[in-house]
Amino acid sequence: MMRLNESAKGVYVIAVTPFQSDGALDLESTDRMVDFYLDCGATGLTVLGMMGEAQKLTIEESQTIVRRILARVAGRVPVVVGVSAAGFAQMAALTTMVMDDGAAGVMIAPPGALRTDDQIVTYYHQAAEFIGDVPFVLQDFPLVTNVQMSVPVIRRIVRDLPTCVCLKHEDWPGLDKITALRAEGSLDRRISILCGNGGMFLHEEMGRGADGAMTGFAYPEMMVDVVRHRQAGEIERAHDLFDAYLPLARFEQQPGVGLAVRKYVMARRGIIANAALRRPGGTLTPQTVADIERLIARQDKRLKELN
Amino acid sequence: MMRLNESAKGVYVIAVTPFQSDGALDLESTDRMVDFYLDCGATGLTVLGMMGEAQKLTIEESQTIVRRILARVAGRVPVVVGVSAAGFAQMAALTTMVMDDGAAGVMIAPPGALRTDDQIVTYYHQAAEFIGDVPFVLQDFPLVTNVQMSVPVIRRIVRDLPTCVCLKHEDWPGLDKITALRAEGSLDRRISILCGNGGMFLHEEMGRGADGAMTGFAYPEMMVDVVRHRQAGEIERAHDLFDAYLPLARFEQQPGVGLAVRKYVMARRGIIANAALRRPGGTLTPQTVADIERLIARQDKRLKELN
Amino acid sequence: MMRLNESAKGVYVIAVTPFQSDGALDLESTDRMVDFYLDCGATGLTVLGMMGEAQKLTIEESQTIVRRILARVAGRVPVVVGVSAAGFAQMAALTTMVMDDGAAGVMIAPPGALRTDDQIVTYYHQAAEFIGDVPFVLQDFPLVTNVQMSVPVIRRIVRDLPTCVCLKHEDWPGLDKITALRAEGSLDRRISILCGNGGMFLHEEMGRGADGAMTGFAYPEMMVDVVRHRQAGEIERAHDLFDAYLPLARFEQQPGVGLAVRKYVMARRGIIANAALRRPGGTLTPQTVADIERLIARQDKRLKELN
Amino acid sequence: MMRLNESAKGVYVIAVTPFQSDGALDLESTDRMVDFYLDCGATGLTVLGMMGEAQKLTIEESQTIVRRILARVAGRVPVVVGVSAAGFAQMAALTTMVMDDGAAGVMIAPPGALRTDDQIVTYYHQAAEFIGDVPFVLQDFPLVTNVQMSVPVIRRIVRDLPTCVCLKHEDWPGLDKITALRAEGSLDRRISILCGNGGMFLHEEMGRGADGAMTGFAYPEMMVDVVRHRQAGEIERAHDLFDAYLPLARFEQQPGVGLAVRKYVMARRGIIANAALRRPGGTLTPQTVADIERLIARQDKRLKELN
Repeated sequence: MMRLNESAKGVYVIAVTPFQSDGALDLESTDRMVDFYLDCGATGLTVLGMMGEAQKLTIEESQTIVRRILARVAGRVPVVVGVSAAGFAQMAALTTMVMDDGAAGVMIAPPGALRTDDQIVTYYHQAAEFIGDVPFVLQDFPLVTNVQMSVPVIRRIVRDLPTCVCLKHEDWPGLDKITALRAEGSLDRRISILCGNGGMFLHEEMGRGADGAMTGFAYPEMMVDVVRHRQAGEIERAHDLFDAYLPLARFEQQPGVGLAVRKYVMARRGIIANAALRRPGGTLTPQTVADIERLIARQDKRLKELN
Repeated sequence: MMRLNESAKGVYVIAVTPFQSDGALDLESTDRMVDFYLDCGATGLTVLGMMGEAQKLTIEESQTIVRRILARVAGRVPVVVGVSAAGFAQMAALTTMVMDDGAAGVMIAPPGALRTDDQIVTYYHQAAEFIGDVPFVLQDFPLVTNVQMSVPVIRRIVRDLPTCVCLKHEDWPGLDKITALRAEGSLDRRISILCGNGGMFLHEEMGRGADGAMTGFAYPEMMVDVVRHRQAGEIERAHDLFDAYLPLARFEQQPGVGLAVRKYVMARRGIIANAALRRPGGTLTPQTVADIERLIARQDKRLKELN
Repeated sequence: MMRLNESAKGVYVIAVTPFQSDGALDLESTDRMVDFYLDCGATGLTVLGMMGEAQKLTIEESQTIVRRILARVAGRVPVVVGVSAAGFAQMAALTTMVMDDGAAGVMIAPPGALRTDDQIVTYYHQAAEFIGDVPFVLQDFPLVTNVQMSVPVIRRIVRDLPTCVCLKHEDWPGLDKITALRAEGSLDRRISILCGNGGMFLHEEMGRGADGAMTGFAYPEMMVDVVRHRQAGEIERAHDLFDAYLPLARFEQQPGVGLAVRKYVMARRGIIANAALRRPGGTLTPQTVADIERLIARQDKRLKELN
Repeated sequence: MMRLNESAKGVYVIAVTPFQSDGALDLESTDRMVDFYLDCGATGLTVLGMMGEAQKLTIEESQTIVRRILARVAGRVPVVVGVSAAGFAQMAALTTMVMDDGAAGVMIAPPGALRTDDQIVTYYHQAAEFIGDVPFVLQDFPLVTNVQMSVPVIRRIVRDLPTCVCLKHEDWPGLDKITALRAEGSLDRRISILCGNGGMFLHEEMGRGADGAMTGFAYPEMMVDVVRHRQAGEIERAHDLFDAYLPLARFEQQPGVGLAVRKYVMARRGIIANAALRRPGGTLTPQTVADIERLIARQDKRLKELN
């Protein structure tokens, strides 16, 4: 079985969860979405993340969608599953379920009540004990979790917990944090650092030593291109492509409305049948749709100029 | 089937969840605890509340404990079940499960991200739609949820949602809020108001028009006594008894450590076999145990003086 | 005397506060900065804002910098002064001081403890009473203040308080909020809406009905250009210019480090003598400087292509 | 000049700020209040604290009230002044002013945005550098500041900053924290620990090693009595007196309304002429006044029984 480890790199796309217009899971779109992500060059998938509307699913639906995705991926890339939960019993149960089904690892965000360094470290000690020898991704996303993990905290977690193999870096600003984590001797072993925030800083993040991205965007090919060109030393080319997508990426990165934008574009691209979010979830106003359409038209034009 | 309604009054005890020393559910202690609460004079029970360590249970365990309690109560008093969840799908699934098993209603706390009046009202509209015609308790507990419900917000929820039959009032301070809600014409129909905060203000809350308590304390007989004596017009007697328990109630009301104190006392009284909280959960230091023992000794002495 | 009113439009630049390397106020750079902003086409200035390091100044220094700026502006454009304070007495004293010195109005952000709609509205009622007939800008910046002002709240403030003449709109996302505020009959009178967030959404914000920007960026000419071209109906040209600056704007918009980036660029452009923030204030790492330099080089190249 | 040091003990009463009915400072009541506190047995005073409505005063008023209190105290006990401010420049200016006037030290609360251990420690390093060799009280009050200081954080601050001479301990729960701080070798030097929270846990706090209280209550004699009897080894007597005041202390400890309760009682006792809070500040409803009156009547009766 494929297991996530410290060498993870490239683009782990945070998958959306496709729904039918009546709110039921849309499993056919799910298959198409998986194919699309892999065709784009994704090196991994992450499902049941915050942008996967995980919290709106029942346990049974969570299992259904994870199994469907795992079946379609069929071992081509590792699949990470978000298992953040209100309590450790549920987290452990979900972890066991998805690992039995073939996931490569899990991702854990800290609960919002954590404040002090010791509280955060203790939380991950407990989580790691509950999930056993399953490799996990440490999710550092203060804008949403309201938990701030300092470099010393990450250092302690990495030192104490060998199953912590990857940092989903989503602090903002976070560039100097990556630099600090990658400094000689900062961590006592190298872990993977994959970045979030919709790829909005991917270019600079890789310059600081990140291994790629673990985030979502309606055009994951942008992230794949940036990673590939940077790895090939084509810095300006990577930046040119990044810049072409940036106006839309910025628009999709707006909190709250962002997922509706992403699904709208994915439906428009024919990847998923229906742009609907499960309730409760925002809908796009006509003005917002017009904004998106203008951004896409300009993006298409700019990409043509670059090719 | 017994259904919670606007006439709920007296003392709805928030039940703890008894565990064995290895962390497994302790169902025998659960039976004993139910008997104890009812013998004390509880007019209802509330299970899977925050103080019931609900978030540490798997779905299966939640069902097990709810069924066991319902079986033991055997229809003698209504049982309310906390169904707060990260998403509506899980909330609806849990609600259906416990109502099928015989619960009288459910309790819903708002998620911490809600801020504006409209956001709060909209949330309850959606929750009420998801759970259907099930009566629910509106949990107003800003110290923990970080959500502040103003009187106009409660007024809108009561007006719009007929299934909202009870307010678990746990704002702090909250006395003038009860007065405002009970003012002529404030709400367009009378709902039950049961108070929380460990009964720390129960005497004054009833003076403002509350119908009783929905909270926990290692000596629920204090709350039953306060309610009974107040209903009988014996104000000073109610206060004398309240005051006798207050030093310990204050001690048990400390956030975080409070539940461990409560379980320690309940185990000491022979109600539950084991004082342990399920992990993660604090343990009492020897100094804290000494503090509790001194408070109990003084409480016993004071109660003797009063009888 | 020039007074801020509901017709404010264009670009009100949030001024930085220039310091010498020893932390003293740099008044010569202040003059140069004022000239620069006005030469760029600023239609107003806002001083002592969050990005003006207002909280690091003594009262005496606040007065010194405000007076210097007012003297240099010499009535050419209106100057708004941030007067947010821990209490109303200080806010009123500061307001009186700067209005006596010739300011056109003041700006007030809500204190972080406000939660319910009524609390927010009441706060502005009190503030408006304390500052008397002085026109004020309502600052809506939830990312920093942690206070969420819904459309109904803004509606009530505008209806009740005639001295509220302008909304500094800095919600994120906030496009549909502008649309809602500009809808026929939404507000009972038209007020100015000037947008923040470093101009990151200025193009779309103007499309929704905003009158311009009130924010900072090391290249305020971008904002002036966007406003001018949009007003002239040159939508695509406005967007082209916007896009050219976006990679750097995005970089400068990072919380915390952003002001150091802005001052670095302003010093590099010769506007201020010294890039230093007053303590406590971050410094840029060499890696961050390299990121900025690459972004500027690419921006210069792109702007040349566009001209 | 008297300077606060590590041996501070007893009861440092947090002084209220008396106002006339029109909101002006009431300096005659201030004198009477000082006399009252000292007659009660206060070993120190703390002015311009959160409960002193400091944030509602102008700088000039702050200086007026501090000077008046210092003049009346006339060196009989040390006076600590709260200097928490939005920025270090203002904090340093206020510190210089009050130390020149004869204060014994200052008190500093952390700004609410601090999260990680390093952020908190760094903040106090900077504050200590700004105020120079002035002794300061570290205010640990998470319920209001929203900043959680762990034992390791306090340890670092005490180790690094010799001017930190006292901890105003107001965490809740905080008993085990005192025990941890007083453990052999926990801190590298002994500092004073004075407790807050209106004295609600003073008895137990002293049992854990606190040196007394630094807080407010309309009956400071309760705190003086508890300290004195405990120091004399009269534990039960101390507790009896504590318990007699507890029902009212609990009532006064309600957030928000508490200060209005305290001033009402102080006016009723003839200490201050006017119970008014400066705007914005709550007023008491008739029902709340009735609650207070009942509690005072019962308290008087109980104290008589004990004497």
